[in-house]
Amino acid sequence: MESIYSYDQLYRFCISIFNAVGCSNADADTAAKALLAADVRGIDSHGVARLSGYVRLWEVKRVNATPQIKIVHETPSTAVIDGDAGLGLVVAPFAMQVAIEKARQVGTGWVSVKNSNHFGIAGYHAMMALQQDMIGMAMTNASALVAPTFSVERMLGTNPIAVAVPAGIQPPFVADFATTTAANGKLEILQRKNADTPTGWVQTKIGSPSIDANELKKGGSLLPLGGDREHSSHKGYALGAIVDIFSAVLSGANYGPWVPPFPAYVPMPENMPGEGIGHFFGAMRIDAFRTADEFKQHMDNWIQRFRNAAPVDGEEKVLIPGDPEREMEITRMKEGIPLVQSVEDDLKKLGERFGIELT
Amino acid sequence: MESIYSYDQLYRFCISIFNAVGCSNADADTAAKALLAADVRGIDSHGVARLSGYVRLWEVKRVNATPQIKIVHETPSTAVIDGDAGLGLVVAPFAMQVAIEKARQVGTGWVSVKNSNHFGIAGYHAMMALQQDMIGMAMTNASALVAPTFSVERMLGTNPIAVAVPAGIQPPFVADFATTTAANGKLEILQRKNADTPTGWVQTKIGSPSIDANELKKGGSLLPLGGDREHSSHKGYALGAIVDIFSAVLSGANYGPWVPPFPAYVPMPENMPGEGIGHFFGAMRIDAFRTADEFKQHMDNWIQRFRNAAPVDGEEKVLIPGDPEREMEITRMKEGIPLVQSVEDDLKKLGERFGIELT
Repeated sequence: MESIYSYDQLYRFCISIFNAVGCSNADADTAAKALLAADVRGIDSHGVARLSGYVRLWEVKRVNATPQIKIVHETPSTAVIDGDAGLGLVVAPFAMQVAIEKARQVGTGWVSVKNSNHFGIAGYHAMMALQQDMIGMAMTNASALVAPTFSVERMLGTNPIAVAVPAGIQPPFVADFATTTAANGKLEILQRKNADTPTGWVQTKIGSPSIDANELKKGGSLLPLGGDREHSSHKGYALGAIVDIFSAVLSGANYGPWVPPFPAYVPMPENMPGEGIGHFFGAMRIDAFRTADEFKQHMDNWIQRFRNAAPVDGEEKVLIPGDPEREMEITRMKEGIPLVQSVEDDLKKLGERFGIELT
Repeated sequence: MESIYSYDQLYRFCISIFNAVGCSNADADTAAKALLAADVRGIDSHGVARLSGYVRLWEVKRVNATPQIKIVHETPSTAVIDGDAGLGLVVAPFAMQVAIEKARQVGTGWVSVKNSNHFGIAGYHAMMALQQDMIGMAMTNASALVAPTFSVERMLGTNPIAVAVPAGIQPPFVADFATTTAANGKLEILQRKNADTPTGWVQTKIGSPSIDANELKKGGSLLPLGGDREHSSHKGYALGAIVDIFSAVLSGANYGPWVPPFPAYVPMPENMPGEGIGHFFGAMRIDAFRTADEFKQHMDNWIQRFRNAAPVDGEEKVLIPGDPEREMEITRMKEGIPLVQSVEDDLKKLGERFGIELT
């Protein structure tokens, strides 16, 4: 059972909820847009399905609805930002804007953020650079669900990386991916279907291979991109580690197994070495390298050549990173966003609490 | 059959060869050090085994032994460099030095390079940043051996990424990896043993799964990190694409299927859109974010915590990226560098041509 809601319906609802917990109108607007970018782009696990989770973090005072987001250190091309425990959905666009301003001044801007919370999908923030003729980058750490190669312990989050590159007549190149073989959202889909996972997605709590989609609930772990050593899981582990270091060791956020969990009921790790969770953003002005026109012509050529690569029998075509999400966005802005029953129920319950109707 | 040579023996030999083709003493020294970094770190496929290949590129005038390496465009934090068809082993350290200088001035430096050739191992160049208390990054494109997800065509090189991060009392974190499941060198090892590959390393020329270590010679392709769609090969494809775009579309080098091949006898692609192969380098000053002391303390904590993660039964410990290569370097600097018979023969033949003895 799914119900369809328009973007505007969900936007109004989110705005009202964010207002209700104390966000300013401007912050509520920023947060709602960042959150809903996930739903329209088809990454359902990161959109309104998490709205009540954000509210629960506010309830336990882990999210500050009126943060004083501040630059605490900077150079012409860098900044460290203290998110003041604000919603990542608000802190991240602020930080990305700082990166963009720095790129405008000196060619590139790089911002590491501490004391933040989950920021929705990385791709949304990276894409802020596109309309400025800049390449955008966004990454974040997250609470530990992933076992490095040879580890039974969960040490890293799914730590996504997003890179958005403008093109000319072609739509932009937008890569946005977790540094694991499969993100948690994919496990949830299999759980609903009572289906097994492919090999290389999860391991048991003693580190044995598993195809049980419920393995995380039993103390198991997600696996880094690659899956096992033979398939170069050490590369996925290195990628997740780089995201962790850039996002948190550079900024002063928590890292590794000390990153605070998203569910408000899960106790915080002990002996935390930093503040909140960490993000990292980058913006590179295209014309800091070559003229934007030249670059875009070649980017169009790149995209066309890859899209026209001969496909494997049975596959329609080779995709460019961002193609599926962009097509989904066009469809959902027109036809609406389907919510599964459990998410709709959750939103309605949340609305009732604050006297806000989901209509 | 293997023979052992000391670092100094091989260094003197490389210097003599680079001099013989016309390199200045300074360039020969730079190139020999970059090349041998591969051998001492155990990446045998990228070291002296390739020396005669570099010489053949010089013979067909694809390598210029006396390049005028130039910055052709710059901003305070960026530069584009024209390598003037020089050895990548010489162009890359020049470019990395420019990135480091820019980082010294404005916090970070980012350099995209065109008109270059193969640069050895990415990790060597990234590591140049370490002694400056900077994070270093290096990547390069390479000739197409890799089929993107759903493609039967080879469109990308193994396009490696290296990131080097300084620590305090701990040795640095040095990740250096191809964006494929397996690099070509690993296939060569299996070929010598007449062994099959694991699944997910290669596909046939029509895009079917294969475990044939000789598949590339039959028109097949390497696969992006992940291996197949079910194991998120689209993420490895995206990573390889990002390396290609940063290295070549930003600089004006060749990209995708147009990157010139390393073997001098392979004809050049038609309708090439750029000049030579492309690299990308980055340097970020640690204290552009927080004090180097603070950062290093936390980096030490990060490394210790990960190294002490509980290991899977049967594995000794969880490794930090760079551990195996650093241990190999210690061993080989002390005990020498083993060369397989075919590489030793190849070097001796090369030496004879120029009247240089391998002793």
